[in-house]
Amino acid sequence: MEFTAQDLCNFLNGKLEGDPSVKVYKPAKIEEAAEGDASFLANEKYTPFAYTTKASVLIVNENIVFDKHIHPTIIRVKDAYASIAILLDQYKSINKRNNGIETYAYISPKSTVGKNAHVGAFSYVSDDVKLGDDVQILPHVFIGKNVSVGNNTILFPGVMLLDDCVVGNNCIINANAVIGSEGFGFVPTEDGSYKKIAQTGNVVIEDNVEIGSNSTIDRATMGSTFIRKGVKIDNLVQIAHNVEVGENTVIAAQSGIAGSTKVGKNCVIGGQVGIVGHLTIADGTKINAQSGLAKSIKTPNTALTGSPAFEFALSMRSQVVYKKLPELYQKILDLEKELIELRAKN
Amino acid sequence: MEFTAQDLCNFLNGKLEGDPSVKVYKPAKIEEAAEGDASFLANEKYTPFAYTTKASVLIVNENIVFDKHIHPTIIRVKDAYASIAILLDQYKSINKRNNGIETYAYISPKSTVGKNAHVGAFSYVSDDVKLGDDVQILPHVFIGKNVSVGNNTILFPGVMLLDDCVVGNNCIINANAVIGSEGFGFVPTEDGSYKKIAQTGNVVIEDNVEIGSNSTIDRATMGSTFIRKGVKIDNLVQIAHNVEVGENTVIAAQSGIAGSTKVGKNCVIGGQVGIVGHLTIADGTKINAQSGLAKSIKTPNTALTGSPAFEFALSMRSQVVYKKLPELYQKILDLEKELIELRAKN
Amino acid sequence: MEFTAQDLCNFLNGKLEGDPSVKVYKPAKIEEAAEGDASFLANEKYTPFAYTTKASVLIVNENIVFDKHIHPTIIRVKDAYASIAILLDQYKSINKRNNGIETYAYISPKSTVGKNAHVGAFSYVSDDVKLGDDVQILPHVFIGKNVSVGNNTILFPGVMLLDDCVVGNNCIINANAVIGSEGFGFVPTEDGSYKKIAQTGNVVIEDNVEIGSNSTIDRATMGSTFIRKGVKIDNLVQIAHNVEVGENTVIAAQSGIAGSTKVGKNCVIGGQVGIVGHLTIADGTKINAQSGLAKSIKTPNTALTGSPAFEFALSMRSQVVYKKLPELYQKILDLEKELIELRAKN
Repeated sequence: MEFTAQDLCNFLNGKLEGDPSVKVYKPAKIEEAAEGDASFLANEKYTPFAYTTKASVLIVNENIVFDKHIHPTIIRVKDAYASIAILLDQYKSINKRNNGIETYAYISPKSTVGKNAHVGAFSYVSDDVKLGDDVQILPHVFIGKNVSVGNNTILFPGVMLLDDCVVGNNCIINANAVIGSEGFGFVPTEDGSYKKIAQTGNVVIEDNVEIGSNSTIDRATMGSTFIRKGVKIDNLVQIAHNVEVGENTVIAAQSGIAGSTKVGKNCVIGGQVGIVGHLTIADGTKINAQSGLAKSIKTPNTALTGSPAFEFALSMRSQVVYKKLPELYQKILDLEKELIELRAKN
Repeated sequence: MEFTAQDLCNFLNGKLEGDPSVKVYKPAKIEEAAEGDASFLANEKYTPFAYTTKASVLIVNENIVFDKHIHPTIIRVKDAYASIAILLDQYKSINKRNNGIETYAYISPKSTVGKNAHVGAFSYVSDDVKLGDDVQILPHVFIGKNVSVGNNTILFPGVMLLDDCVVGNNCIINANAVIGSEGFGFVPTEDGSYKKIAQTGNVVIEDNVEIGSNSTIDRATMGSTFIRKGVKIDNLVQIAHNVEVGENTVIAAQSGIAGSTKVGKNCVIGGQVGIVGHLTIADGTKINAQSGLAKSIKTPNTALTGSPAFEFALSMRSQVVYKKLPELYQKILDLEKELIELRAKN
Repeated sequence: MEFTAQDLCNFLNGKLEGDPSVKVYKPAKIEEAAEGDASFLANEKYTPFAYTTKASVLIVNENIVFDKHIHPTIIRVKDAYASIAILLDQYKSINKRNNGIETYAYISPKSTVGKNAHVGAFSYVSDDVKLGDDVQILPHVFIGKNVSVGNNTILFPGVMLLDDCVVGNNCIINANAVIGSEGFGFVPTEDGSYKKIAQTGNVVIEDNVEIGSNSTIDRATMGSTFIRKGVKIDNLVQIAHNVEVGENTVIAAQSGIAGSTKVGKNCVIGGQVGIVGHLTIADGTKINAQSGLAKSIKTPNTALTGSPAFEFALSMRSQVVYKKLPELYQKILDLEKELIELRAKN
């Protein structure tokens, strides 16, 4: 991108102080910015950097007061954080999107591709697939039989989207994620070996979902594994067969949800959390990183931590005492000794 | 599939009640089934759904008694759960398997491919590879030099099966799993950097093994990393160099086993478990989800939990008291106060 | 490889005892070695195997004394462990490296490829890429726009190296690793849904780095995620946006580091560790497997364990008492009872 400070100010609907003609080429963090960068200050903690930053333009909240001269041209806006998000979007969108079907892409003649769709080289579209308008299938993507992908969805390289799965509109699936792998279902037999239960269902991903790189979502044994609209899943997350993840729930990296568990709407699940199978988790549940949840949660908006997880405030109190355990142990031994002495006197 | 209730009843060797001519097209869970679905009831907990299900056919245990009329045609069998497993198998097998070598598959002229084998587009078979009969290599699979794959094994898209590895018969390796990546072995040097130890061994996977999507199994430094027959490994599992996983052991998602550990037969390892290196784990060991095992287990069939893990029953008792720690702490403070008072009196 | 014992002895600059003409073909562990293998003894724990090993050659430390006859030809060296590392290197390097550009590789005409580079079939090199000399790009690799890869770096099959990322010299990136996926950044909106923050930065990987299979490193929101020189990262590790991992730090499998955290030099991070975002970790920090670090570490060379992690020695003492909690609980109940009795007497 190339903007003058004045252009940027107009674009963000702000007020300018300083040189309006200075040019900026990319966004950068205030503490790392160099000449030609547009930076921002939204958190007071970072104010000291305003006096040392090499950024050419600094976007700030409208009412901020600086007590010393600062080098960059200032653009005052209502919400600096929202403005930088808009700027980042703008910067990213300038990168030309890919178009057309590349040589070496394989698309079954039994499948249909929407308007303005992109299918990269070495991508494979099986029979009876329906790709929406403006989809971007990057190279090395596999799309199984009878799959449908909604409009404006992006599949990054190496995504494996297996037979019968459904992906909605405006989704982003990151590189090497696997959608629709075999559910982990076996019946023990008398000789100690296991017999596989055929996994006949699919995965349904609704609109506006993002799924992280190398994450795995298993197909249902029967029926569907559901990822409801607006769900955001980070990298290396495991979603087992017949799980349902409710609308606008966020799951951080390396968490796992075992089979048939139903997670509510608007939940926030930290990193490396484990949730056992066949549970029901109420809407708005918050689960701290590395927790292990073994029981259903009935009360909405409960916060939990620990492994096994229990109510956050209680769990934190146990954590505090845990650190004092050696001291407690000593206190108990001392009490025992003193009691023996007292008893001897009585 | 398309069956009449009567066909299905004959196939499952059951007894029919209701309309024998109703048609079913796919299996479904009792609580989700629609018209045209065949469903089942194997667990009493689900009996209430029998009165509301929209399934056209319901497979039940032979001696079940319903106290109200139920809508679906009933098929009574000896073991409803086993019957549905058979039905799922049947349903899945009707999907035509892939055959033949697709255009854009690369197979080295120095390699051999068995009868009825399938190699998908964009799959790469290096030199000196031996593929068995009826193998299915889906698209985007990489097979390194000097690899052998047994009969009837399926490699899903994106599987990376690296040089010198061996895979047995009737195995399933799910999408984007990596078999034979570099073991994590380094020697520290005097300047604080690390020198790589060349990893010269391979991975040997025996018959009837299933490996989950995005799981990783490292090659041995020397010799082999062994996955013995009948082992079932879920998604995102890490098996380090020179590990051995014993016959019919099951490992749930996101667990990791560090280098040179030997896991016995018929073990059950929960999700997100960590096992440190150079241990020996007895046959039939059961390790609860999120446990961390740091010591060898000598007694077969031991159950363990916690991080660090210890014997299940003991560990559960510590867990119970852990929740009461704040209360315990208060009790101790109270006891101290009372003792001081008592001493003052004496 | 094919060496006589005498050749090997000369190569390792050792002293030979026994038959100098015996031939060896591959390295093997002392307890697994067969005829024709070269093995080694560097750890006294394994001395008993010296008397039973079937290895043809045994490399030992120069001053070791055997009290019985041993079968293999002995080569005495200054450091048996270092010698076997050299031998493994030698063995591995004999496997011919790949050369040239294979048919079905796609390389943009706007990109440049160094001398002696290898690009495998089904690999995709986007526009404006610079590949160094002697790089090895195996099949099924995706390289995004404006990426640069240094000399002598190896990208294993299925590596996805996305737009704008930079990889140094002598790096190894294992199969299906993803470099430069979207950072996990969203702003909550009033209706409970999330708006994506565009991720405009990149990933910079310096020289001599190894990254494990199926690991994921996210691009920065702005600026770069940095993996400094000499870092070794195991399989299934998650590095979030804007993280910096310092020189020669080692991270074991399945660990995760949340956004914007700065890890120092020469740290050792065990498996399945979680580190929360926006922390600063001092040089030489050691974090035990499965720990959860929630606070910055200021003192270099601190050892930590637990979730939440605290200082190793203290944490171990709490762990010891944790196991005794049921007993402690009983002690407290007993003390309470006794105090009541005592009070009754007073």
